[in-house]
Amino acid sequence: MITLLSDFGTEAHFVGVMKGVIAGIAPRTPVVDITHEVPPFEIATGAFLLDQAWRYFPAGSIHVAIVDPGVGSVRRPILIASQGHYFIGPDNGLFSLVLQDAKAVARVLDKPKYWLPDQSNTFHGRDIFSPAAAHLSKGVKPSQLGKRINDPWRNTVFEPVRQSRRTYAGAVLFTDRYGNLITNFKIDNFPTLRNRPFELQAGLERIELFAGTYSAIPPGEVAVIPASSGYYEIAMREASAAKRLGLANGSPVELTTS
Amino acid sequence: MITLLSDFGTEAHFVGVMKGVIAGIAPRTPVVDITHEVPPFEIATGAFLLDQAWRYFPAGSIHVAIVDPGVGSVRRPILIASQGHYFIGPDNGLFSLVLQDAKAVARVLDKPKYWLPDQSNTFHGRDIFSPAAAHLSKGVKPSQLGKRINDPWRNTVFEPVRQSRRTYAGAVLFTDRYGNLITNFKIDNFPTLRNRPFELQAGLERIELFAGTYSAIPPGEVAVIPASSGYYEIAMREASAAKRLGLANGSPVELTTS
Amino acid sequence: MITLLSDFGTEAHFVGVMKGVIAGIAPRTPVVDITHEVPPFEIATGAFLLDQAWRYFPAGSIHVAIVDPGVGSVRRPILIASQGHYFIGPDNGLFSLVLQDAKAVARVLDKPKYWLPDQSNTFHGRDIFSPAAAHLSKGVKPSQLGKRINDPWRNTVFEPVRQSRRTYAGAVLFTDRYGNLITNFKIDNFPTLRNRPFELQAGLERIELFAGTYSAIPPGEVAVIPASSGYYEIAMREASAAKRLGLANGSPVELTTS
Repeated sequence: MITLLSDFGTEAHFVGVMKGVIAGIAPRTPVVDITHEVPPFEIATGAFLLDQAWRYFPAGSIHVAIVDPGVGSVRRPILIASQGHYFIGPDNGLFSLVLQDAKAVARVLDKPKYWLPDQSNTFHGRDIFSPAAAHLSKGVKPSQLGKRINDPWRNTVFEPVRQSRRTYAGAVLFTDRYGNLITNFKIDNFPTLRNRPFELQAGLERIELFAGTYSAIPPGEVAVIPASSGYYEIAMREASAAKRLGLANGSPVELTTS
Repeated sequence: MITLLSDFGTEAHFVGVMKGVIAGIAPRTPVVDITHEVPPFEIATGAFLLDQAWRYFPAGSIHVAIVDPGVGSVRRPILIASQGHYFIGPDNGLFSLVLQDAKAVARVLDKPKYWLPDQSNTFHGRDIFSPAAAHLSKGVKPSQLGKRINDPWRNTVFEPVRQSRRTYAGAVLFTDRYGNLITNFKIDNFPTLRNRPFELQAGLERIELFAGTYSAIPPGEVAVIPASSGYYEIAMREASAAKRLGLANGSPVELTTS
Repeated sequence: MITLLSDFGTEAHFVGVMKGVIAGIAPRTPVVDITHEVPPFEIATGAFLLDQAWRYFPAGSIHVAIVDPGVGSVRRPILIASQGHYFIGPDNGLFSLVLQDAKAVARVLDKPKYWLPDQSNTFHGRDIFSPAAAHLSKGVKPSQLGKRINDPWRNTVFEPVRQSRRTYAGAVLFTDRYGNLITNFKIDNFPTLRNRPFELQAGLERIELFAGTYSAIPPGEVAVIPASSGYYEIAMREASAAKRLGLANGSPVELTTS
């Protein structure tokens, strides 16, 4: 199974073309979209969404992820093997969360025989990543697709930073369609929020309310909620916390525990 | 075959994750999207779109539909069997049109062995509905997934209300991408519109024009048209009736027949 | 394999319903979306996107394309066979680029036994095009679906027009999600742009800069780039040339070579 994640949108032919290329090489391999609506060039958002999705797919899945402002330049096309899954895309930080696995093995895709015959400088999704994924799904070995590298690009922007004994500087990782703001505070790392007072400074508001479900939030109020993502989310009941607070992907938030 | 309909949008990982969960349990079951662009929390719109779509799928199809502001609260997860099709989702009125079938059988999903091992309070599409649908597609019996209930939630907002001998209060059920306004006046229930004078009050305009096709509407005019949905639609030729009239999903309209 | 391209959007049930109809007739035929976000009624944009996509699919693929403001009127439903691929949709110019193949064979779909039993006047994608494509994928012969015609509709709006010895009037064929403007100047027809001075008048700006990749464009500048589409594109680095220049699909541009 091949999954696709990109910032290509669905207005153009890009995604359909990748599926055509895959079908031409590996007609029996199922292809599933994760999303193509990563905001243009937002590598960190792509990394977050990939991290949320890939582990729910069967072992052996091949995840093609493309947010690639440097396409056609010196950035390398890479293949990563980690925890029984494969990841293919540009070496620009998009796989930073995957690469937190110390056992991950990275390779540079350097065998043009597994690409389309001609390569453009602007659409490696079509010319390199999709054909390489299709060949991999048919049994070509990772070692045939390229040689190992030890220095794949890692960004380190995803963790909260401790400011003082009880205060942490965090950020909004993702804003969903409902206006819920997913922060980078992991539920497992801050287990006391459910039981003990806290303050989350977000935009001009100080949030002290905790709720277990969206529908437990009083109408018009903003609460912190332990979300399905594994992170705390800033949410309202049937309303947009993003609009209320004026926040978006990347906005800073600050948590003070007790 | 499993179909998916939701208000999740396609910007995030939600839909991809559901497909991954299904593939992990039932790798050979095809999955088809109906739409994920139901406006957030619009249960009635979801009910309308599901009603328009499901009967065009083969018998035995499993339709997972999720517009679920009450996720994680007391609302039940349910499974309905009707007319050879299955429906899975929250018990909040979303299946009101399906439940107009007097022979429909509803069950509460109460067997966690057919769910993911852990359940969040915010994403039952991933944790309960998708795995239950996948197991059902593999031959698990409805009776194994949960026990029968006699009181699934029914809304009754979809029918026009007679105001006087020849006047009916109706509403806009759905506004499509072209700006056509699908009303809740069924063609079969108002068969005279094609042949005899009528007035449809919509916003500030009184529509008296009937047309058989979009391209038969004079440019710049607004007409009533018998649409593929089985309902009358308010339409313009290559222009948006919704913008012209200032109407949207749920807006009232009033029909007077002769 | 059946591909789908339309201006239906994904907010409504239209695309899902077509897939249901196909699955009911040809349950084993894979269905792939090219795009459903062609701007409403933009036949030329649909023709461009179809042309970009179809040749990347395996031989024998059936491409259903629908941008159809004249649905239900006198415009014919057609089937075209060209270069080992099939094309199904309305006869309104949408297949103009496909029909540049002199060996293309066109037929009118005139056998209702291969359609749904009832046909609306507003949704031939459901009632005629999808069932015809499904039957074709199952081995029904093109000659069984309809008789040959010699006059399918051709538009001729896609080629630049020579204005003087070195000056050509062109147009924007498509604006992608990043704001890159794909012109109708083919790289193969204007091979000197890479090596010799040129001027591209676009909106109020005169572009004289050539770049091989997006990331080679100096920040804030606008350049001409040889794109994966086979056409020259007007682009900026991680910014929208469309917004900067105020141009959109169909906007005129003028190229002067040296």
